[in-house]
Amino acid sequence: MARVCNFSAGPSMLPLEVLKKAQEEMLDYEGCGQSVTEMSHRSKEFDKIIKDAEKLFREIMNVPDNYKVLFLQGGASAQFSAIPLNFMNKNNKADYIVTGVWAKKAWQEAQKYGAARKVASSEDKIFSYIPKLTKDDFDPEADYVYMCMNNTIYGTKYPYIPDTGDVPLIADVSSCFLSEPLDVTKFAMVYGGAQKNIAPAGLVVAIIREDMLGNAMPITPVMMDYKVQADADSLYNTPPCYTMYMCKLVLEWIKSMGGLEGIKANNEKKAKILYDFLDNSKMFKNTVNPEDRSLMNVTFVTGNDELDAKCVKEAKENGLINLKGHRSIGGLRASIYNAMPVEGVEKLVSFLADFEKKNS
Amino acid sequence: MARVCNFSAGPSMLPLEVLKKAQEEMLDYEGCGQSVTEMSHRSKEFDKIIKDAEKLFREIMNVPDNYKVLFLQGGASAQFSAIPLNFMNKNNKADYIVTGVWAKKAWQEAQKYGAARKVASSEDKIFSYIPKLTKDDFDPEADYVYMCMNNTIYGTKYPYIPDTGDVPLIADVSSCFLSEPLDVTKFAMVYGGAQKNIAPAGLVVAIIREDMLGNAMPITPVMMDYKVQADADSLYNTPPCYTMYMCKLVLEWIKSMGGLEGIKANNEKKAKILYDFLDNSKMFKNTVNPEDRSLMNVTFVTGNDELDAKCVKEAKENGLINLKGHRSIGGLRASIYNAMPVEGVEKLVSFLADFEKKNS
Repeated sequence: MARVCNFSAGPSMLPLEVLKKAQEEMLDYEGCGQSVTEMSHRSKEFDKIIKDAEKLFREIMNVPDNYKVLFLQGGASAQFSAIPLNFMNKNNKADYIVTGVWAKKAWQEAQKYGAARKVASSEDKIFSYIPKLTKDDFDPEADYVYMCMNNTIYGTKYPYIPDTGDVPLIADVSSCFLSEPLDVTKFAMVYGGAQKNIAPAGLVVAIIREDMLGNAMPITPVMMDYKVQADADSLYNTPPCYTMYMCKLVLEWIKSMGGLEGIKANNEKKAKILYDFLDNSKMFKNTVNPEDRSLMNVTFVTGNDELDAKCVKEAKENGLINLKGHRSIGGLRASIYNAMPVEGVEKLVSFLADFEKKNS
Repeated sequence: MARVCNFSAGPSMLPLEVLKKAQEEMLDYEGCGQSVTEMSHRSKEFDKIIKDAEKLFREIMNVPDNYKVLFLQGGASAQFSAIPLNFMNKNNKADYIVTGVWAKKAWQEAQKYGAARKVASSEDKIFSYIPKLTKDDFDPEADYVYMCMNNTIYGTKYPYIPDTGDVPLIADVSSCFLSEPLDVTKFAMVYGGAQKNIAPAGLVVAIIREDMLGNAMPITPVMMDYKVQADADSLYNTPPCYTMYMCKLVLEWIKSMGGLEGIKANNEKKAKILYDFLDNSKMFKNTVNPEDRSLMNVTFVTGNDELDAKCVKEAKENGLINLKGHRSIGGLRASIYNAMPVEGVEKLVSFLADFEKKNS
């Protein structure tokens, strides 16, 4: 079958070039007579893969030398525990900004390990906006401030980086990782699951400032101790080697697209096409606070559940899949991550316009 | 380059049929227009993959209905923490049998969470044998007894399943998983990393008796709570989808090989070829207690470090790779997991015989 346009919130599309390269090398990686799926993580071939991946990551994200780049397992949800276990280590308290279900889960998990305070929440309006916070809103005694930069389910993104003063800022960037340049120096840690913009599922990339490391609670599971992972260069135990190889291929693709500036331009173009359509549509509405709109996840509704469902169904019949909104808010959602081509969004808009005409 | 014979301790060889199938389906899985690497874990296509994988696993391992089969992340090392966190829940103590570095690491990690007692150890003879234990050796008040069935580094395997009376028995079977039939009913939990016999690295499969679940310590990270994973059918968060798909392909291959009886016959044939050679060699010696020999990892030495190194080097030049023994014991090691063909072992023996002739 022809390749579909996959608007899944994650796992999601990978660049076709990357898939073709992976396919080509599946039985024999660079003439070494093995597949990367079979390769010892202590081999010189894999050592080059992981080092290249880290080097590309540092280059593309412009990661300063005093930050570690770690490749981890367990998804963002494992970090929800690891973050308080590693960093709630001075006053045993932290500030959480709750802008969606995932930030809320992180906040709830942190309560197992210390005083996790909800600084602000946008739950009053079904997480359709990002709270505006200033330095005075944060507890200067907090061990860190936690935020989720892009909220996949609701289609919001922080239009600013909160000023937390001297309190370390930690951000889950799972669904906007590598979608545009990010000033890493504003954060003590940024991390995200790979399954949106980086690689297939099963990998987390974390960028952590070195001075944060080394004071995990004694009850921290060894695999969740970031210092252990940093000291072992992400090879404390066998890592998800093949997923890291795919990550390397995606990073090479990003570089070939002009790095994060090139990627950003492409993402802005795609988002503009879709938001412009929605803003001019009489049937479909994006209900997010305009300045907090996500570049990656575009949510919209007709206001009629049956019509929403009909639209999702007919879109699928046209090769536009996974447009159903998250069950918690309903409606539709188009996730237009890095690998979604401009043509995919154009096809979607053309389909939606046609659907509107036929159903008005 | 021609396919090499990869004797790596893990990650290790996958069946060629599996790699070819994965290659063929890389751009389009069963005509759905997507790669499995891109597939939503909530899609009906992936739902079928995970359900098929579990069904095959249950069938092949003959898993009783009162056991859960879980697909997890973080490697065996994450389970070293999760096991005490979930199960040291009555008397806060457990018995550990230390038969190698990995069992030792599990024992040390458990000490973070309660009284982990070393029941027995074979460290006195560099882990070259399996201690013989009877019911009286175990503390009847222990919450569980922990063992590592096959010891990858040393090439040993339990020739018996310890009788622990009413105390639940938990086994790490990473390097002998699916290598021969196993009576699951003798255990409260068996688990292992996928990267030897099941799939590429990045996946753990755990089989847990249901009555064990539901009493994790309050400090247990949510991703390490086996009850949470069981209740969510291993989909609490995004799982390593592609690795699970590869797992399904490997399970199909095992079934086509005659299930675990067929696999066992093949493994015994391979091991016999290699051990018979070693037992008759004047240069190479296997130093493991004969009845505790592993079917999967065969260790041997010449008694001369330089000669060992020369042998590893020349073997590599002949397409026989990763024969270097673990740094902790030196010498050579051939890991002959399920996917290593008989011809691979024959090639190895032929090479070793030739090496012996030339260097005697």
